Parts: sequence; structure tokens; C-alpha cells
Amino acid sequence: MGMSTRDQAVAARNASRQLQNLSSEDRAALLYAIADALEANEDAIMRENEKDIAAAEAADTESHLLNRLKMKPGKIAQLAAGARQIADMEEPLGRQLSKMKVADGLTLEQVTAPLGVLLIIFESRPDALPQIASLAIRSGNGLLLKGGKEAAKTNAILHQIIVDCMPAFGVDRECIVLVEGREAVSDILALHDVVDLVIPRGSNSLVSYISNNTKIPVLGHADGVCHMYLDPNADVKMAAKLAVDSKTDYPAACNALETLLVHKSLIGKGKDGYETVAAALVAAGCTLHGGARAEKALKLPACPAPRHEYGNLGLTVEIVDDMDQAIDYIHANGSGHTECIITNDKAAAEEFLRRVDSACVFHNASTRFSDGFRFGLGAEVGISTSRIHARGPVGVEGLLTTRWLCRGDGHFVEKDTGVKYTHQKLPLDANLAHKVASGLGWAVGIANAVHLGLMLWKMATKK
Amino acid sequence: MGMSTRDQAVAARNASRQLQNLSSEDRAALLYAIADALEANEDAIMRENEKDIAAAEAADTESHLLNRLKMKPGKIAQLAAGARQIADMEEPLGRQLSKMKVADGLTLEQVTAPLGVLLIIFESRPDALPQIASLAIRSGNGLLLKGGKEAAKTNAILHQIIVDCMPAFGVDRECIVLVEGREAVSDILALHDVVDLVIPRGSNSLVSYISNNTKIPVLGHADGVCHMYLDPNADVKMAAKLAVDSKTDYPAACNALETLLVHKSLIGKGKDGYETVAAALVAAGCTLHGGARAEKALKLPACPAPRHEYGNLGLTVEIVDDMDQAIDYIHANGSGHTECIITNDKAAAEEFLRRVDSACVFHNASTRFSDGFRFGLGAEVGISTSRIHARGPVGVEGLLTTRWLCRGDGHFVEKDTGVKYTHQKLPLDANLAHKVASGLGWAVGIANAVHLGLMLWKMATKK
Repeated sequence: MGMSTRDQAVAARNASRQLQNLSSEDRAALLYAIADALEANEDAIMRENEKDIAAAEAADTESHLLNRLKMKPGKIAQLAAGARQIADMEEPLGRQLSKMKVADGLTLEQVTAPLGVLLIIFESRPDALPQIASLAIRSGNGLLLKGGKEAAKTNAILHQIIVDCMPAFGVDRECIVLVEGREAVSDILALHDVVDLVIPRGSNSLVSYISNNTKIPVLGHADGVCHMYLDPNADVKMAAKLAVDSKTDYPAACNALETLLVHKSLIGKGKDGYETVAAALVAAGCTLHGGARAEKALKLPACPAPRHEYGNLGLTVEIVDDMDQAIDYIHANGSGHTECIITNDKAAAEEFLRRVDSACVFHNASTRFSDGFRFGLGAEVGISTSRIHARGPVGVEGLLTTRWLCRGDGHFVEKDTGVKYTHQKLPLDANLAHKVASGLGWAVGIANAVHLGLMLWKMATKK
Repeated sequence: MGMSTRDQAVAARNASRQLQNLSSEDRAALLYAIADALEANEDAIMRENEKDIAAAEAADTESHLLNRLKMKPGKIAQLAAGARQIADMEEPLGRQLSKMKVADGLTLEQVTAPLGVLLIIFESRPDALPQIASLAIRSGNGLLLKGGKEAAKTNAILHQIIVDCMPAFGVDRECIVLVEGREAVSDILALHDVVDLVIPRGSNSLVSYISNNTKIPVLGHADGVCHMYLDPNADVKMAAKLAVDSKTDYPAACNALETLLVHKSLIGKGKDGYETVAAALVAAGCTLHGGARAEKALKLPACPAPRHEYGNLGLTVEIVDDMDQAIDYIHANGSGHTECIITNDKAAAEEFLRRVDSACVFHNASTRFSDGFRFGLGAEVGISTSRIHARGPVGVEGLLTTRWLCRGDGHFVEKDTGVKYTHQKLPLDANLAHKVASGLGWAVGIANAVHLGLMLWKMATKK
């Protein structure tokens, strides 16, 4: 301690390079050592957790927050199992993405590399810490971690147990820094030259605050204003089912439905149209609000704004003349997260899929599928409504960047007369090719292998 | 005119969606129409260019700037040919990057999409304008373009000719906005919610200024401090050739060599060691400076700083004990651009390639190969020393993002009981598979096809 936050971030980068320089086996062995250490220290962890809980109870903390703070019996075993499963992931680093013969004897390859130093801010649930740390270790990244202050003692012991395992592998303990206090976060947010990515895992207001107060790229989403468009050829029973699922499965989630756009032809058709969908939503406890046109036509209370994230069972309904109007409405009022069309008209569906400029565009499926776990990405790092680096649900590839490796034999440029360029694409090295046959890279193939790890990870998030 | 810059950016995004909604053939046809219009208006363009030149001469502009400003005979034909070749590129949008069976009847694919709205700032050479516009049109992006004020009249007519071609294809002229004046640029730099990427094509100080004054992601590099490490097993003749090429081929380029790190065993070996390299550098006109250790041991004048980009024939030499020290020196003082090891020891080379945390890491090849053209990327958008989104030389994929398209048949989540997840990776659609077999995507395969386009593009940059 006593280091400036800048020094801490630089130390984390240096230590992450030690981590990156370990063999894949050693990085996995480190995770196994951490899993063992978590189990060996179960009693001590639980004691610190009880202190946090006692302090939170004394401060009259709300029961759902207390619930998230509490390490339940069996939790340590779960966390250890999660660390071992992340250890068993296929190696994410050094994977070949492309290979080319630039000129005779001069080859170029693009390989995956760690992003560098990540700042991850997570809320009260302390079990997120070992999970995030495990992913960072597997992917060779340094970490600055900021947890909730309610969980300070639990986070501190978890952090200590993890970093205590590092020196035996030649990695400095500074590889993972537990950041204390709000001021320290402000200090870090100014370090855009030494921190590569911020991942705020928490409320929309947290993400907005971070985005507005740093030049470091932020992976996340400040809001999720998702739309569903009912086309004239929608199966209204399917529409009812999917609208209810999209809205009510987890109303506070970013992928929950906020606005239902209804083609005008479905209005006034009784049970063969909008009425069936509205009745299902109301029966499921939803409160319908109207956009400017629906407010009058359907006698609904006015929605707060054309762009509004309810976060509860509220929902805006609006009537549109055609798909053009629906898409314009989405582009004007959406957040670029997830939109869905309900239709049996395949051409209309394909047009919607092609034209809607959002991270996720669905046909006849619940907006709730927008999720790293459901997308099979291996482990969800976050959902991005940014357009660069990573868009939509992001798996571990969001923690990676690339490097270009070029091998020659004395090749020089000399105003481009030094070599005769062939630029011939080469097949990937055989042992790697099958893993990177798609742009999703290695993340997809291991989806099943890390299923338990995922479930643990999901438990640490609040969707 | 009269629109606020925010309105202009929003209009560019809306128009870019019209562009994106065109078929690939129509976007190509638009580029052919632009090529025809450039040729048809050659005289008018040349007249405006002459006015710019006259004004620049009256203002005593330096001759090399005048030279860049001047549209030479045949230039219009070249620009038209370049636009037609970019039109003939394979379609960059909607390319499948991955495909998965999420559950029975529920498929997910990831496809390429335009990034959105780009701000591109380029210096005096007006022929960059049609080239940048052509790439943006092919990739479905809206553009805010800021050219040098010396070229104002030439840029204005080129811009007008291009956007006049758009309405016939159902695309608003606002798709490409020519931004006037420094204040307008400041205004745009504040629009991080409507502009997706800034690409400053110009001096390091321009890039630094932009990076320090916007929250919009910047694709570029403020500096390029490249290192070459001479290993004990270096072929000193090869080292001499490659050091000279890396330093002198274009000393002002970002991929030029700035620091030569020499293993201590190569010192005092006469012509079998460092002396051969130093003699070649001096013979090529270079001025050698010493790091702290070399300054004394080799009696060299001191370098200005351990991290210094000369931009001329100056070069820092430093002595290191071993590869660890060389790599630490690079990590402490480099800019993460390009580093090279010279050695005949393959294991040492592979260790260097694995451990050096820079965008490009080379073995026995000139640092000058770090370049989109030489890397065969199809068209160079820039060279990025950022770690997110794109790293190192960036081709047109730097102008793209992705979307997730999901097709179901009434699939719902219902707390993950609604479907049975299979997460089975599917082969890419046959007509697309061969184009995206590597992470480089389509960019590599077309390298040869756009060779002329590339040469034109390169002429517009200053490397």
C-alpha cells in the first residue's frame, strides 16, 4: 500500500506480463492453486463475511442487498469449482486468427493477446471477485477491482487468498489490485494511458457515471430500451407469449421489452389482433402506456417519453403504419440493444433483420435471449451497446486484443523494391484451425465445458 | 448548411442507414456513378484546384505543401479508377462471422455491419477525399470529413460531385458532410453519442490533439517509437541492412526505427559485432545517440530521453545484458507499435515474439513492414496503437462492427426453462464460408484486386 493508483496500475500491467509469459499449463495450475486455497480458507472467509453482514444489518441494509452480500453454505466449493473450470478452458492467448505469406520467406500471423489492465467495478455480491479474477488470470490480464463497500472484509480476504497464490508462479501479487474508496476510482478513471478497459457491472446509473467520467473505453450499456414490432402477419398467440416473456421474465434486465410497436392493421381485429397480446400482458401484471398515437386510439395513459426504460412491468405501446415507421421509431428512440419482429412473413423478417441497426435483432424470439450465456459465448463479460471493439453480449474475447507476428529472413522494404509481395493467405496451423473457424473464435466451442462456471458467473450477476 | 454539427452528424447517420439498406450492387453502382461524375467534371475540378494553388502561392506556402495540394494531370482518371476498384471489392457488409444452433429451431449468427458515422480529418492533399468517401460508401458508413483549409475549394467541388450522385440512389446528400472550420471540429469532438470513430490522418500532434480533446474513440497513433534488439546470435550483416532500412527508408514514418538495443556480447567484437551495424548506419547518414550505458561505453552523445521519436536520421543506441533487459526497456520506453529481434537463434526469436507486448513484433524483418498495404490488408484505414477494436495496421474491418441476428419460431426464455440449450456451432453458410475462414475476414482475399486502389490510397498518405 502507499502506492499511487498510477503506480498500482503500472504494477498490474507489469505483473500481467509475467502472467502472460506463463505457459498455459502454469496459468491453469495457478487457478487450481487458487481453488485449493479458497477451500482451505473457507472458515476464515465465512468469518469475514459474517462481519460484513453484521455491519450491514447494524446499518439497516435492505434485505435483498443483505441477501446478495451473504456467502451461503457450499458457496466456497462452488467458487473453487468455477475457478477449476475456467482453468480447464482452452487457452485463449496466442491463438492464430490469420496467417499470410507476405513475400517469399516472410510470413505474418495475427494472434490473440491479453487486453492489458482492466478496471472492473462490481456491486455488493462478493462471489463475483474470484470469478472475475479467474477469467482475468486465464486470459493474462491485470486487474484493478473495485467492490462494494458493504463487502469490504469479504472482498479483502478473497483478494488476499488469490494474490497469495501468485508469487509461487513468478507473478507479482500486484497483478490483481483491490481498489479501496471512491476517490481511488476517480483517480483510476483518469488513467486512460495505463488502463485499457473499464467494465462496470452494476446499475445503469453506475455505467452512465463511469462513461461520463473517463476517457478509458467502457464495456457496458447505460440503458436497454428494447422494442418488439408486431407485423401484419404476426401470429398473435406467439406475439402474446413472446411479449409477456420479453417483458416479465426479468423486468429490470437490460434485455427486457420496453416498447411494443403494433402495425395498424392489428388494431380493431379483436382476438385476432392486438387485443390478444394486450390481454396477455395485462394478465401477466403489466401496465400498458401509450405512445402519442396509441394513447388516443387505445385510450392508454401516456408513456413518460418515446424512449423510456421502465425497469418494471410498465410497457409502452405504439401504433405504426408500416415497417419503415417501426424501424424509424426504433432508430430514433432505441438504445441499439435488442429489437424483435414477430411475423410469419419471412421476407418481412429478413428485411427487419437486415435494416435494424442494433446489436441484436431477433425474429420470433424473446428479447431475453440477448445474453452471453444464452448466446453460448462461454462466459459473459458484459453486454455492450458501444459499436467498437465488442457489440452485444460479449464473451471472454472482449478481454482480448491481437498482435501481429512477422517472421522473415532479412527482409527489407527499400521503398517497396526490397521484396516481391505475394500476400497469399495461408491455412491456419493445423492444431489451431478448428478452434478459430469462425469469428467467434474459441469462445463458442467451449460453451458446454464451462457450463458450471457460467452458472456460477450468472449467479453473480443480477439478470 | 445552417444545420448544427449535431444535426449534421445525425443526418449522416440516417443517410448511412439508407446506404446500408442498398443492395451491394447499388452501393457499387453509386461508386461507378461517382467515378463517371469525377471524370465528367475534370475541368471544373482543376479550375477550383488552381484557385487553391494560387491562394497558397500568394500566402507563400512551402513548396512541398504546394506539391501535395496540386492535382496533377491524370489524377482524376486515377481517382475514378480507384472508386471503381473499391466498388468491385467483395461486399463487406452482412458477412457471416459465426453461426450457432442455440436450441432446436433457434439459430444465431454474427454478421458484419457498418460502424456508423466516422469523422475523418485529413491534411492538405485533396485527392484523399474521393478515396475516403469511396471506402465509406462501400462499407455503408456516414462520414464527416474535415480537410485542410488550403484545399478548401478543391475539397468543396469534389464533395459536391460525390454527394450529387446520392439522391438518385435514394441516399440523402448528408451521408457525407464536409465540415468547415476549426470550431466545427471542436463541436464534433464533443458528439461522442453520435460519432462512432475519429480517424485523424496527419501529424502526430494532430492525433495527440484529437485524442486529448474527445471521448470518441480514436483510430491512430500519436507516436511510433520502434525498437530493434540485436541478440548475441544476430547475423550482423543482416542486422546492419535491417537497421539501415528500418531507420532510413522513411525516417518520418511511425514505423521507422528509433532505438537499437544491443546485447553486450556484441560490443567490442569489432566487425563481427556492433561495429558493422554502427558503421552501416553512419554510412547511411544516421546520427547515433547513446542511452545511459551506451553513452559511456561507446562514447556517443546522449539521447534526448530513453523514449524519443527522432523523425529524422537520429537513432538511440543502448546496451543490454540480456533479452529480459531488452524487453523491459521496450515495455518501459516503447509506444507499443513495432519491435524487432535480429537473431539466428530460433528459440530466442520465438520467446521475443511471444513476450513483447506491442501491436507488431518481428523477427529478422524491417520494422517498415508495419503497414496495411505491406500486410496485405486491402486498404489501410490507419495504424492503431490503441489496444481495443483494432491494433496495428488496420484495414477496412476497422470501419466495421458486428450485429447478432437470431431467428426463432416462438422461442421464449421463461427463466431458462423455455428452451433446451444446445449451443452447437454450425458451419458458415457455404457461399460465405471461404471468405471468412480467418479472423482477417474478407480483407485479405481481396488484397490483389484492389491493388490500384491501394496505391492511390497510399499516395494520399505520407508514408
